[in-house]
Amino acid sequence: MGASATGYGVVGIGNAIVDVVARADDAFLAAHGIAKGAMTLIDPERAETLYAAMGPAIEISGGSAANTLAAYASLVGSAGPKGAFIGKVRDDQLGAVFAHDIRAAGVAFATPPATEGPATARCLILVTPDAQRSMNTYLGACVNLDAGDIDEAVVAAAAVTYLEGYLFDPPAAQAAFRKAARVAHAAGREVALTLSDPFCVARHRDAFRALVREEVDILFANEAEILSLYEVDRFADALAAVRAETRIACLTRSEKGSVIVADGAVVEIAAEPTVVVDTTGAGDAYAAGFLAGHVRGLGLARSGRLGALAAAEAISHVGARPQRPLAALAAERLGAPA
Amino acid sequence: MGASATGYGVVGIGNAIVDVVARADDAFLAAHGIAKGAMTLIDPERAETLYAAMGPAIEISGGSAANTLAAYASLVGSAGPKGAFIGKVRDDQLGAVFAHDIRAAGVAFATPPATEGPATARCLILVTPDAQRSMNTYLGACVNLDAGDIDEAVVAAAAVTYLEGYLFDPPAAQAAFRKAARVAHAAGREVALTLSDPFCVARHRDAFRALVREEVDILFANEAEILSLYEVDRFADALAAVRAETRIACLTRSEKGSVIVADGAVVEIAAEPTVVVDTTGAGDAYAAGFLAGHVRGLGLARSGRLGALAAAEAISHVGARPQRPLAALAAERLGAPA
Repeated sequence: MGASATGYGVVGIGNAIVDVVARADDAFLAAHGIAKGAMTLIDPERAETLYAAMGPAIEISGGSAANTLAAYASLVGSAGPKGAFIGKVRDDQLGAVFAHDIRAAGVAFATPPATEGPATARCLILVTPDAQRSMNTYLGACVNLDAGDIDEAVVAAAAVTYLEGYLFDPPAAQAAFRKAARVAHAAGREVALTLSDPFCVARHRDAFRALVREEVDILFANEAEILSLYEVDRFADALAAVRAETRIACLTRSEKGSVIVADGAVVEIAAEPTVVVDTTGAGDAYAAGFLAGHVRGLGLARSGRLGALAAAEAISHVGARPQRPLAALAAERLGAPA
Repeated sequence: MGASATGYGVVGIGNAIVDVVARADDAFLAAHGIAKGAMTLIDPERAETLYAAMGPAIEISGGSAANTLAAYASLVGSAGPKGAFIGKVRDDQLGAVFAHDIRAAGVAFATPPATEGPATARCLILVTPDAQRSMNTYLGACVNLDAGDIDEAVVAAAAVTYLEGYLFDPPAAQAAFRKAARVAHAAGREVALTLSDPFCVARHRDAFRALVREEVDILFANEAEILSLYEVDRFADALAAVRAETRIACLTRSEKGSVIVADGAVVEIAAEPTVVVDTTGAGDAYAAGFLAGHVRGLGLARSGRLGALAAAEAISHVGARPQRPLAALAAERLGAPA
């Protein structure tokens, strides 16, 4: 499949996951000891037990960085620089579903599937009536992603290499991150990172801190994540800390909108009003919007508004991937991107 | 798993299928030679080609009779007589998805999965902007369902044995139908049949005619299907023909509602107003509603209204399985079932 190595806007590196989404009530979460709103790693036995107890579900391709690339592709359409994704599935039915969906979204995806070992990763997502999602991830084949899967030509050809924080969990992926960052910077490109989840940050805080200081040009985090990273209680303190360490930081605050700090400037972006059905993928979509603006040189404010718009679309329906063509939505709401 | 053999309301026998649903425009259907609104059988190669060309999809458990049983379970809740399903998956990931979803819906399902042979069946469903669905079915493991899979104790214990017309396509299933009908009638139970699709009727017209005459107590068909069965052009002629051959016939006519003929009576039921998003599963849900009323002795008019209500819910969202608890919806719209 060797992806063409010319002119990518963004290459995302993350866990390749199929989401299994069901509605549940708070009593179900309590009965099964599920941490509401968080991402919890589960083993195959727990995955089996939880799945058997869950209600009827639908399967939708997911994965944080993969969701971002799908939304990025929808935003830039055929006009903008294409996106690419690097992540590990197995050669099984759900792996084929993941590969189909990301390619069908217009994203280059050429990581070879594992031919042995664990099955394609699954995330059992329980959406409660308050639209919160609680994620239970069986990492499966994702544990096999390693530095050898980083296609240097693709990374060197992408304006931004986007790293998903969740990928700190599978053992070999941190080495893959470091390699990708090295290749990107050697080619004069930018490196972006999303912190993904406050508990993920807590599990890998030292490694995250070092990566942010040494390699990250653009950081995405929500309020809980940035507070966890710097072990502070106040948003203002986290903001001051992150300004000293990265060139651009996009901090999302749910219905309070987002704050972008960059090059001495602080830009506040309002949240886009919408009906909230399922918050899965809000952060992923925000990053897609910001990056779709950033790689096309649209400036901080407009890039942030694209992020807010994509996030609003993501939370207005079940599932993280966009259900409406985002380029058309953006043109309708914000005018032409030129 | 051996399902308990006491007191089922309905046992459905049909193809066990996972739906792969994507949006498409009319140009896509034309470019790929897809018959709009119909169900077309496809081989593995065609399934591969079409899937590669389709946009991003979601996977939802489907299958006509299986959809009916899921909606039936949602309508009767824990109070009414339970439903059961007989159908063939393989022991693969999509087979596990199908089995989980139907059991999680509250339906007994104990058909052993095939351990070799073709993969679990898939139906590639393309939903056009006019809400029409065009179905392309790879039958896979369904071809292995045979008379040996008919659990006689379950059939004998079910008030109604519900047969899906699509099951005339896999080679060994007609024998399974005949066996199920024999067992049901020997136990003093009723046999229901849905014609499924006008092209399916045309493929197997003689076998359908014989089955209707000899075994069917309750027939479900839409206008195109009943015209095809009797090879007539006018609905009134089809109505006259079917009255002579079955005790109860429920004929659905989309936005024109439905007509139920039974025991000399003709009952007209208005369609339930709704926003039409995806017509997949409308007929399946109608049958569920009628049967949920029928097995609880609610009479023709009320059973028909339950059918119309369930059909309206099914077409108001993407995918055939109910997304709202139908018992609550029915109580809200029609009052308590007693």
